[in-house]
Amino acid sequence: MKNIRVHLKERSYPIIIGNNSSLGIGALCRKLNIGKDAIIITNSLLKKKFLPKITSSLKQNNFSIKTLLVPDSEKAKSSHYCLSLIEKISRYDKKKQPFIIALGGGVIGDLAGFVASIYKRGIPIVQVPTTFLGQIDSAIGGKTAIDLAIAKNLVGAFYQPKAVIVDLNFLKTLPQRQIRTGLAEVIKYGIIKDKKLFYFLKNNYKKILKLNPQAVNFIVTRCVKIKARIIEVDEREKKGIRTILNFGHTVGHAIESACGYNKFTHGEAISVGMLCASEIAANLNMLKKKDQNQIQKLIELYKLPTTIRKTLINKIMNSLLRDKKFIKSKPRFVLPVSIGKVIVKSDISVQLIRGAIKKYSY
Amino acid sequence: MKNIRVHLKERSYPIIIGNNSSLGIGALCRKLNIGKDAIIITNSLLKKKFLPKITSSLKQNNFSIKTLLVPDSEKAKSSHYCLSLIEKISRYDKKKQPFIIALGGGVIGDLAGFVASIYKRGIPIVQVPTTFLGQIDSAIGGKTAIDLAIAKNLVGAFYQPKAVIVDLNFLKTLPQRQIRTGLAEVIKYGIIKDKKLFYFLKNNYKKILKLNPQAVNFIVTRCVKIKARIIEVDEREKKGIRTILNFGHTVGHAIESACGYNKFTHGEAISVGMLCASEIAANLNMLKKKDQNQIQKLIELYKLPTTIRKTLINKIMNSLLRDKKFIKSKPRFVLPVSIGKVIVKSDISVQLIRGAIKKYSY
Repeated sequence: MKNIRVHLKERSYPIIIGNNSSLGIGALCRKLNIGKDAIIITNSLLKKKFLPKITSSLKQNNFSIKTLLVPDSEKAKSSHYCLSLIEKISRYDKKKQPFIIALGGGVIGDLAGFVASIYKRGIPIVQVPTTFLGQIDSAIGGKTAIDLAIAKNLVGAFYQPKAVIVDLNFLKTLPQRQIRTGLAEVIKYGIIKDKKLFYFLKNNYKKILKLNPQAVNFIVTRCVKIKARIIEVDEREKKGIRTILNFGHTVGHAIESACGYNKFTHGEAISVGMLCASEIAANLNMLKKKDQNQIQKLIELYKLPTTIRKTLINKIMNSLLRDKKFIKSKPRFVLPVSIGKVIVKSDISVQLIRGAIKKYSY
Repeated sequence: MKNIRVHLKERSYPIIIGNNSSLGIGALCRKLNIGKDAIIITNSLLKKKFLPKITSSLKQNNFSIKTLLVPDSEKAKSSHYCLSLIEKISRYDKKKQPFIIALGGGVIGDLAGFVASIYKRGIPIVQVPTTFLGQIDSAIGGKTAIDLAIAKNLVGAFYQPKAVIVDLNFLKTLPQRQIRTGLAEVIKYGIIKDKKLFYFLKNNYKKILKLNPQAVNFIVTRCVKIKARIIEVDEREKKGIRTILNFGHTVGHAIESACGYNKFTHGEAISVGMLCASEIAANLNMLKKKDQNQIQKLIELYKLPTTIRKTLINKIMNSLLRDKKFIKSKPRFVLPVSIGKVIVKSDISVQLIRGAIKKYSY
């Protein structure tokens, strides 16, 4: 079992990584002294798969348990479910020592995190991510949000959890496509910050795709460490450091938005996004052709998509220019300059962006 | 013009007190560098009374201005108006440099503060309180909230403003009853922390009730300083220090709740609340009879209510035992031990509380 600490003064917390690490949740919550009444937010599918493991540990440690279910889709991240959860928590919250456990992927983590941040001006939350993406990215760092009809993630808060429990056994139940989508983010970490991780991904792809425990443990730990260190220096994304985590996400989000969030998973969309950002960097003579090829080959190795349909280009461009990451509507990109190093660059011309997207369209 | 700074590291901010201090809002916002697009949240009554003063200063400093109105009542503090404001801000927020100005009393300050805290995970807010209570209490310290049907202030955040502008001229337009309700909180500050203020209130009540500028400036500044110092040591009400601001509020809130928030203003309810807390302290031999009398006399001097109807006692007791300030349902009270000093005491018996309320009923 590994324990990686996010150092944020009074908001510091541990990330516990291991096979079956969720079996220790009861003891951990008791040690953290965060309350007595556990409110687990999850969905019906995850309830069946993972809940018994967690509740037995909580019961052994004398926690009261209330499970609240939300739908298994992005629509759970709405003001409706947010308010409905708060009313349910309020009705249950008699002894006034509640804390939340988010058992799920990015949607549940974001929603439950936001609920925890605003209920009575904030109650403790423990994140138990069940997806690859949740374990290496979204459950760490305190970004919480819900969607409004007008825009995704429009409403939210920076609110750190009291702990993150990364149970690597959870990954075994994931379908191949979800594993690949998580691996796209792992590739991202390699490109932005970790050359060793990048080549490990290249040299061990068979092991990794088969979820070999040692290999998975290695890559998850590397990613978690990178994310933790970035959060420590730029918790609220104000210094332009946390920004590098958005590598591939600018075009990636535009692809998701243009396709209506159905055709591509998040990881698939950012795969194409990473290729486009690399192409922009290469065209600006900031990235060597050799490194650009390495990036493309790694994405292909993991059978992640490398192209989108030509008919989508206009829609993607429109969506991109409305992106909230753009300051004063000036396209700002995270660009690789070598394997393991990126920079943030403003004022990328629209032509250059369109050209890069076009290259990866068919 | 006085400038009192709340020291909270990167969340520090100034409180500017003076006659016509709101005329400097444009220059202040420019100096603070908090954005370019001012979104003023207020109601139609306050818009007429105070908006021109503020907008002229903002225009002179080249801010774009958008005014959003909410109803002039507690019902504005709802999830409905919160979400509606966010959608309007999102539609207006094209250049992505918005900040909020809350122009109003406690309701608008709480609502606008919460909106600012959750819109895109937080945008800057400047509080411009228009009521006595807002100027000396609610606009300072970052407590924000909205009500749900199930309970008041159930949803909220701790979110500090970038500045608080206390324009003492605003007070001149207030009806006498609202001035008295604000003065109840001033009396509270005297009892919990400031003997000099207490006796100033006693010796200058005629001047104060006529809103003599020097007298008002003196008492507002004293209150603001006390609140600022308390926030600095216990921002999130975790150390039991901010708790002392709740003196009189435990029974006070129960009275408001039992009467449906109509019969008594907040200040009137806490006047009776302060008397009850003093009676409990006296019965526990913690407060001298002489000091208890001084407290009662000062409240009477300002013609604040000292009694409630006997028929309300049961309702008040019920509401009190559901109070979210009670930990594990154990009644916890802020009790005066002398003029200018209070302590927090748990495990006050229900009999003692009922007895105190009974004493102040008719």
